[in-house]
Amino acid sequence: MVAILLSLTDLAIYGVLRVYGVRSIRWSRIVRPIFLINFAESRQIRRAFRSIRNTLPEITYVFLLFMFSLLMFSLMALKLFGERNLQTAEGLPYFRNYLEIVFDLYVLVTTANSPDVMMPAFDFSSWYALFFIAFVIVNTYIFMSLFLAVVYNNYKKHLKNEIRKLAYMKRRKMIEAFNLLKEEEGEQLVVREARWKQLVKLVAPDISNSHRELLLRISDNEQKGFVDKKSFVQLADLLNIQVVTLKLRSHPLARWVPRVYGSAASRLLRGLVRHRAFVWTYDAIILINAIFIALDEETPYISYAEWVFLALYVTEILLKVYTYEPRAFFGKTQFWNWFDTLIIFAALTATILNATLKSTTKYNSQQILDIVFILRVLRLIRIVDSIQRFRVIMNTLINIVPTMLTFGGLTLVVYCVFAIIGMELFHGKIQFFPADSNAPHALECGNPALKDSLFARGKYCKNNFNDFASSFIVLMELTVVNQWHVFANGFANVTVQPAKLYFIAFHIVMVIIIVNIFVSFILEAFFVEYSLEKSEVETAIEQKIQELGMGVQEDELQDEQLLDNMESDEHELEGEGGTKPQPKGLVFKIASKRYRTVDALLQRMFEAEIPLEDEGPSLEEILNLSPSAAIPRNPNSESVA
Amino acid sequence: MVAILLSLTDLAIYGVLRVYGVRSIRWSRIVRPIFLINFAESRQIRRAFRSIRNTLPEITYVFLLFMFSLLMFSLMALKLFGERNLQTAEGLPYFRNYLEIVFDLYVLVTTANSPDVMMPAFDFSSWYALFFIAFVIVNTYIFMSLFLAVVYNNYKKHLKNEIRKLAYMKRRKMIEAFNLLKEEEGEQLVVREARWKQLVKLVAPDISNSHRELLLRISDNEQKGFVDKKSFVQLADLLNIQVVTLKLRSHPLARWVPRVYGSAASRLLRGLVRHRAFVWTYDAIILINAIFIALDEETPYISYAEWVFLALYVTEILLKVYTYEPRAFFGKTQFWNWFDTLIIFAALTATILNATLKSTTKYNSQQILDIVFILRVLRLIRIVDSIQRFRVIMNTLINIVPTMLTFGGLTLVVYCVFAIIGMELFHGKIQFFPADSNAPHALECGNPALKDSLFARGKYCKNNFNDFASSFIVLMELTVVNQWHVFANGFANVTVQPAKLYFIAFHIVMVIIIVNIFVSFILEAFFVEYSLEKSEVETAIEQKIQELGMGVQEDELQDEQLLDNMESDEHELEGEGGTKPQPKGLVFKIASKRYRTVDALLQRMFEAEIPLEDEGPSLEEILNLSPSAAIPRNPNSESVA
Repeated sequence: MVAILLSLTDLAIYGVLRVYGVRSIRWSRIVRPIFLINFAESRQIRRAFRSIRNTLPEITYVFLLFMFSLLMFSLMALKLFGERNLQTAEGLPYFRNYLEIVFDLYVLVTTANSPDVMMPAFDFSSWYALFFIAFVIVNTYIFMSLFLAVVYNNYKKHLKNEIRKLAYMKRRKMIEAFNLLKEEEGEQLVVREARWKQLVKLVAPDISNSHRELLLRISDNEQKGFVDKKSFVQLADLLNIQVVTLKLRSHPLARWVPRVYGSAASRLLRGLVRHRAFVWTYDAIILINAIFIALDEETPYISYAEWVFLALYVTEILLKVYTYEPRAFFGKTQFWNWFDTLIIFAALTATILNATLKSTTKYNSQQILDIVFILRVLRLIRIVDSIQRFRVIMNTLINIVPTMLTFGGLTLVVYCVFAIIGMELFHGKIQFFPADSNAPHALECGNPALKDSLFARGKYCKNNFNDFASSFIVLMELTVVNQWHVFANGFANVTVQPAKLYFIAFHIVMVIIIVNIFVSFILEAFFVEYSLEKSEVETAIEQKIQELGMGVQEDELQDEQLLDNMESDEHELEGEGGTKPQPKGLVFKIASKRYRTVDALLQRMFEAEIPLEDEGPSLEEILNLSPSAAIPRNPNSESVA
Repeated sequence: MVAILLSLTDLAIYGVLRVYGVRSIRWSRIVRPIFLINFAESRQIRRAFRSIRNTLPEITYVFLLFMFSLLMFSLMALKLFGERNLQTAEGLPYFRNYLEIVFDLYVLVTTANSPDVMMPAFDFSSWYALFFIAFVIVNTYIFMSLFLAVVYNNYKKHLKNEIRKLAYMKRRKMIEAFNLLKEEEGEQLVVREARWKQLVKLVAPDISNSHRELLLRISDNEQKGFVDKKSFVQLADLLNIQVVTLKLRSHPLARWVPRVYGSAASRLLRGLVRHRAFVWTYDAIILINAIFIALDEETPYISYAEWVFLALYVTEILLKVYTYEPRAFFGKTQFWNWFDTLIIFAALTATILNATLKSTTKYNSQQILDIVFILRVLRLIRIVDSIQRFRVIMNTLINIVPTMLTFGGLTLVVYCVFAIIGMELFHGKIQFFPADSNAPHALECGNPALKDSLFARGKYCKNNFNDFASSFIVLMELTVVNQWHVFANGFANVTVQPAKLYFIAFHIVMVIIIVNIFVSFILEAFFVEYSLEKSEVETAIEQKIQELGMGVQEDELQDEQLLDNMESDEHELEGEGGTKPQPKGLVFKIASKRYRTVDALLQRMFEAEIPLEDEGPSLEEILNLSPSAAIPRNPNSESVA
């Protein structure tokens, strides 16, 4: 609302000034990215912003102390080096002006001008190195770690609070639901089976009948025809655990051409594909392929080799689909199968397209060729999945991806704000000219003020604020920090010296706050993954699955092994005529850890701490845990959140 | 032992080769720093090394995955940019050789060559920026955070294990001691008062009688003349809590010249000094002083001002000593009083020395003048202590200092190893010449191989491995990371290209492992400080102190306030004739949180989790918690550890 009001005011002022011919700055543009936060699907982003707001007071004190330390060291530097008549490597006066010293030492905190800023003093006397070493230890190592500590501590506190609130809300809503649906049964208050099923159908319409039946059997353990309060409250958690229903279907080919598919040759082939050596062979092929990629491809043999490798990869996928049931192979949780198939077919398409273009126009299309190269290298990633230890790390990384998008959003908002300000301040001041340009001052980025500057010498002319895309890339480079002082000095030279404040502000907001939150988030996600154990509810489901004889022996089977296992179950059925009770021809399996979000894990960790009888604090108390929290609509969405 | 054997072997080989006139490398020099670990007072350093060793396997897997990602991206870069005939800003070929690409991209991970490494590709096509952005996100942000997460996780796990072991050992030894000293008393087994006192005298000979009496009253709460098992076991903790015995002595001057000290003028003066405004006045003086320091001091007025400020500061200290009891003012825990006095008197001495030298030799001594400048600025730090929020952060920082020395030791060992290797590899290859030197190749650091290199252009010649001190400074600059590739390229140019491996190895060991442990340590120390509450034992002591009427009202009083309080107590005694029971004219106070070590805090946190009845696992089990742990000698040293 405030943002809209501000925008309208600004529009009015701009309009009025326009009438009088005054060019004013549309300052409300800066406010616009705030709409991104409010309108987009951005609950996570809002949460992240709330987390930042809560962190601010505490970080402010550390920041003030840090600034004090910086000012003190600058004063010392002025006294120690100011009257030595030293010069920098560029021949400029060294440490004469207090404000310039403060800026130089702030840059040193980010390590971007180390060791250049030290060299003139160091050349004068080796002892002066001690000053810079003390400075770096105090400011770069201790204070920057302190910032991370404060941000991480607050992030964790805030996260815990939010999660606790969600958990209590869920508990509360489930009890409310129970009170609405309850009926008397003997002395107990219970929910009867029919109502329960109706509820589950309503709440989660897309789960299968067999899955619902399984959940009922867990909730109504003794098959009494009703669900008591304690089991009912667990329903949200039960629904939340992904149970994969694996239909023990036979392969479509086995149904269509049973004779061929069941023949000795076909069985042998499928046996080969299922063998461990098949994976090893393809790992070896990938390695050989890597070498071929690295070699020069002008030699005709090597460019033919590419076709051979493509053919090998396509064969692999076809063989796997022949061996394993296609719907299981392309199941929702088979990340690597999808990855493989998409990469290979994209590479195939692009390579064919490129070959066609080449034969018709005699030229390679650069874009298509680039894509071919990238796809070709991406294929190699698959080898990571063959090594158990790597897979664990990869799982953590894949788990982190969804929440990482939140930070993408957060970064986008901050970038937008700074890009708009940057374009207002620096638009058109710096131009990029191609290397063969004859424009005046082409080497100084079209601006004589940059003559002999590090900015022009580093050929940074393309880093400018002339359009949105360029601004984003400049901001990305500033986030990476290195050489940011060259940018700051360059842009200050073409405008005014206080323009450096823009770059310092960006550093504080982006690097000290947001990057630290990002690091906190990765740390937390990693620790949660590490301290992960199976929850009670999950164990209950698994037990029931086993009891019903519909389980896969281990739930942590590797994908290939799992499929093997399914197949061998099928074989048993075929061979021994189904001695095991497999009433519906399906097995259940709890989805592997790999596809859980960090939030869900945290919530579960917290819930393990609340006893089941605890109904949690009252609604007002929950809401007062932090005044600004959003209240989710229904129990299901809460638990998914 | 292994190190000694290796050294002897090496010495023998060296001797033999020397006889035959062959110059061999004394490779065992590298082993020598290991003696530092074993012989010095370095239990903490050994612990840190154990922690690193335990972290290695896990970090290796992350590192391999990181290397895989690096090699993949390098391959992609080779394919995308290798055949574009691009040139770097220095006019060198861009991204042609695979190994060079790997090195360049490794440098980009450390952000040291951003954005230079991107510019040629970016100038060619804006789209190529996406490649570098993806690279930085994956490798710099995600993988480097993952390293921190792995190191931190292991650090915490290991620390917890060690602390747990210490806590169990302490409990166990105390029970053993109890069993040795116990006597029967009715149905209970107890330790009688006399024996208990004897034991305390033996174990802690330097605590005062009154303090011992206080501990006895806590252990033998009902004054039954003996201590039971439960209270006995707590003894180590009781001894461990610093109780400051403040003797309510009157000021020496009050004893020597009671008439003058008690006069109205003297009372008024002391009242003024104790007033809050006195502190504010001096804060204002410090700020004015800061401005004067920043101004040019050639003006005679300003150099006189320095004398005025010195006089003001000395007056302040004298006034305080006049007002407060000197032994309390210079108590062990009065950090800032000590700091103030030392700084001021050092500044006074140096300034007088400088003035004397100037009047006799007409020249300022540069060294003394530098020290005067530094001391002058350091005085300003005191202002931090006036603001409550800053003081909390400062306390954390001061608490961290002792353990930070461990990292100093760790860093020293690593630096020694690398300095020795570096001196073997690069000794004398690069020379530093003063600016006005006429030596050949003075601008190329005496080595024509460096012509036109960034190393020579950056005037880095003084960064060399010609002696130990220089090597340390170079390694410090490499730890800060920025421009390390310039060093690596420079030293590779004057020797051989594989010399770059030395710099990469240093980066992996120092930055990826040791700096991350340092950051982990600061994070942990900060979290422990934050989650700190008073322990049970501490509360018991405090309660007893209050019960006995020998307490200071608040134990978290600020230093000044505390002294005020003491004085006013004294006044009460003087004025009202001692209405309160103050039998021995002394008060106790639990030492403030500021002087506790992180280890002690952690140990206390863990102990809160063990119930008092739990005797802990058996000795073998404790030792098996981790096989290589050192066993402390006596219960007291354990709890101090």
